[in-house]
Amino acid sequence: MLRLSLLPFHRFPISSHFLNLSPKSTMAVSASYTTSSHSSSKLLFRQLFEKESSTYTYLLADVSHPDKPALLIDPVDKTVDRDLSLVKELGLKLVYAMNTHVHADHVTGTGLIKSKLDGVKSVISRASKSKADHLIEAGDKIYFGDMFLEVRATPGHTLGCVTYVTGDGPNQPQPRMAFTGDALLIRGCGRTDFQGGSSDQLYESVHSQIFTLPKDTLIYPAHDYKGFTVSTVGEEMLYNPRLTKNKEGFEDIMKNLKLAYPKMIDIAVPANMVCGLQDLSERPAESVST
Amino acid sequence: MLRLSLLPFHRFPISSHFLNLSPKSTMAVSASYTTSSHSSSKLLFRQLFEKESSTYTYLLADVSHPDKPALLIDPVDKTVDRDLSLVKELGLKLVYAMNTHVHADHVTGTGLIKSKLDGVKSVISRASKSKADHLIEAGDKIYFGDMFLEVRATPGHTLGCVTYVTGDGPNQPQPRMAFTGDALLIRGCGRTDFQGGSSDQLYESVHSQIFTLPKDTLIYPAHDYKGFTVSTVGEEMLYNPRLTKNKEGFEDIMKNLKLAYPKMIDIAVPANMVCGLQDLSERPAESVST
Repeated sequence: MLRLSLLPFHRFPISSHFLNLSPKSTMAVSASYTTSSHSSSKLLFRQLFEKESSTYTYLLADVSHPDKPALLIDPVDKTVDRDLSLVKELGLKLVYAMNTHVHADHVTGTGLIKSKLDGVKSVISRASKSKADHLIEAGDKIYFGDMFLEVRATPGHTLGCVTYVTGDGPNQPQPRMAFTGDALLIRGCGRTDFQGGSSDQLYESVHSQIFTLPKDTLIYPAHDYKGFTVSTVGEEMLYNPRLTKNKEGFEDIMKNLKLAYPKMIDIAVPANMVCGLQDLSERPAESVST
Repeated sequence: MLRLSLLPFHRFPISSHFLNLSPKSTMAVSASYTTSSHSSSKLLFRQLFEKESSTYTYLLADVSHPDKPALLIDPVDKTVDRDLSLVKELGLKLVYAMNTHVHADHVTGTGLIKSKLDGVKSVISRASKSKADHLIEAGDKIYFGDMFLEVRATPGHTLGCVTYVTGDGPNQPQPRMAFTGDALLIRGCGRTDFQGGSSDQLYESVHSQIFTLPKDTLIYPAHDYKGFTVSTVGEEMLYNPRLTKNKEGFEDIMKNLKLAYPKMIDIAVPANMVCGLQDLSERPAESVST
């Protein structure tokens, strides 16, 4: 297991972060609709949208920490200047530029961010077979200040897809927040017909790794095409038109989507295998295992 | 002063809602960045986006109330089915379809919503000179369950613009949330060159009615064109490139924007004067004054 808390950046005792992580699946269904936000006064959270690819980028920071350490999930190359300007205005120290997976519909901003801002480390799953400063795996914890994201492997859209979930425990945001990439979209999910995709695997991923989270967990996907910004685990368990089916029904739906070949895939995927920049440093990824 | 709590819908004691409404302007600046959400577990809140006009629609509901009463701010005609489907899935009872002003860039969904869902009342400012079930004025309180929105007059983009602000008090969301329409946008503001617009008036509105709110008050505008979803009063006081200027500087900027004539205005404004439906009932607005 890799703990990015072992990096020089993390300076705080971490004992309080390893409390019970088991899903509170017995929580009443009614609680799943009570809020679309969280109760932590330490977390700064911003959802940002890139219109052309309908991509959401997420900014999270621990503003109770003197450095205000921050991370970006799924930044897009075209909106890097917007994102870095916001980071600067809010007085944050960006430490991680992360991806949920190798995107096929846009070029990631992680490489560009690294070229513009010293000290930022790129993060992606080892299973993605991409280059990055940190290659993460299921169970890893990514710390920013006293907060962390837990890594859950959710392959099926691509082989290397992960979901980042805010931690459980007294100092972590409540309700929890799940950044699901393309594994689970609001009332939908990512396609499974390329990049090692598998509808069987996606069904298992969502049901075992996301639908087992507390029902009030907020779902923040990598995209939305209808103008939704957030959902909850409870809502998707009830109303997701694909993932509420049994596995055979789901596989039938995914087999018959008849989607066009993604127009950006031949540019985006090779670029995103190297953080969006072909000319990134060729040094191997750091391996900080515990 | 009009209190929509006097409508049959409101059945609850309201004494606790009339506590101190004065702005907490002494709050530390650092607090203004601590969160983009709120701590109320009773409020269900959803931000929804209409891509063509880059309009945000907001859904708010008091889910601690048995009826789960809800309201929509600035619904768009094209996304009414999406919005009503969400209202239904979440088990909410939609009571108000409200506008911050007479929009010039899209047709409001309020009339269409009324035609599809019984019992919904349309709300707009009296100063807008539009037709609606309830014509509100500065100082009015619009209740949904035990929560309320306070009406602040913020003319300048149009003569009838209002900002709806969540209430102050122990049962209201913290931090407060301001739905500013086109008066204050994230790092911008609405144009002031038509529909009774006045840059002098807009400057006064924002400085006296919005910038006097606590600095951590969340700003939820009617539009964003760059992919931002939320800001805070503190952030806009520091970084809004127009409204941080003195009044003369602001008026100079607004005078020299050289914007094109809005392509939807000749369709949208006449339609929006009657809730987006030319054939709406012609009966006069209810006048429930206190």
